Amino acid sequence: MDNSKSLQFIDELTSYFNTLPGVGKKTAQRYALQLLKQDDDFLQSFGKTLCELKSKIHECSICHNLSEKEICGICSSPLRKEDLICVVEDIRDVIAIENTGQFKGKYHILGGIISPMDGIGPSDLNIDSLVNRISNTPEIKEILLALRITMEGDTTNFFLFKKLKNLNVKITTIARGVSFGEQIEYTDEITLAKSILNRVPYES
Amino acid sequence: MDNSKSLQFIDELTSYFNTLPGVGKKTAQRYALQLLKQDDDFLQSFGKTLCELKSKIHECSICHNLSEKEICGICSSPLRKEDLICVVEDIRDVIAIENTGQFKGKYHILGGIISPMDGIGPSDLNIDSLVNRISNTPEIKEILLALRITMEGDTTNFFLFKKLKNLNVKITTIARGVSFGEQIEYTDEITLAKSILNRVPYES
Repeated sequence: MDNSKSLQFIDELTSYFNTLPGVGKKTAQRYALQLLKQDDDFLQSFGKTLCELKSKIHECSICHNLSEKEICGICSSPLRKEDLICVVEDIRDVIAIENTGQFKGKYHILGGIISPMDGIGPSDLNIDSLVNRISNTPEIKEILLALRITMEGDTTNFFLFKKLKNLNVKITTIARGVSFGEQIEYTDEITLAKSILNRVPYES
Repeated sequence: MDNSKSLQFIDELTSYFNTLPGVGKKTAQRYALQLLKQDDDFLQSFGKTLCELKSKIHECSICHNLSEKEICGICSSPLRKEDLICVVEDIRDVIAIENTGQFKGKYHILGGIISPMDGIGPSDLNIDSLVNRISNTPEIKEILLALRITMEGDTTNFFLFKKLKNLNVKITTIARGVSFGEQIEYTDEITLAKSILNRVPYES
């Protein structure tokens, strides 16, 4: 092709976008060409943010959350309860739970769930650091497992239960039930059955 | 939220991805968090590419293609035919047509198609520069319209036809017909009808 050099530049940009989850080559190219329409200020600050990303954001050495310092804001906060640790898969789950404003404990981020199909085993996750954390922190009384409700989530819950059961902590999971706004007739059978078995007293 | 500063940084990155076509807030956040898993070399070169984008790539002053110089490689190539101009909507169409290796003429990129629903009128497209280009270049003999085959594409074709018909050039469109590998029974009626009306001699 005659205008290969400028396209090489676009190809390079396309290949970066191509690494993002669920972004194929065509979509990546679309993103790259869309950026050409942005003004230079936008591109400069986007580029600068990417260049600074690794130096600005680290992984908290306690809970594996995002942090600017060695220990993240949640782990170092005196306002958060020491006795309750919520185990989640991903940083996005922390953001979702924080947005509810209902959780006052601390977190532990596994960085994934056990999924043999994707080649992810227990050793790929932050499980050892969770065991060490519980062993070294007598204040911890309860571990709340908040993993996705799938086969992989259940497998991970079971694996964690086996690992943690002798550590003298209470192990709980988030409630399974009918979602807010969900119609009973469209709720799947397993969820509906659980919501009946785990029924709670009516509060007026 | 206690770890707000590092999340502010992620929010900033999320907002950049949020400007990409078809990328909502959740997907943008997923992209931002995925980038955290990349090594610093990757992020540095991704960032650098974005910062350099505007200074490295310009719009060709003749055909509006991507170019490193004032005039793009295709427009300045002596190997491309002067007499045939293919009118396309977007740079991606140029890439797709170039990949076929069958087109030896030059291009003119409209930058979109007429779409009143999206507020895009003829004045938003590179139509005046096409008219000027044809008027000032007596070598041009044929304009091949290669726009998408939709109502908007047809409208744009018709508008261009009216604009160009007195300029002493032949106006053609790409053939409409049954796609390669497509089954006759699943082909839509309009395409099938066109493919019968525009039948071509069998070549063995």
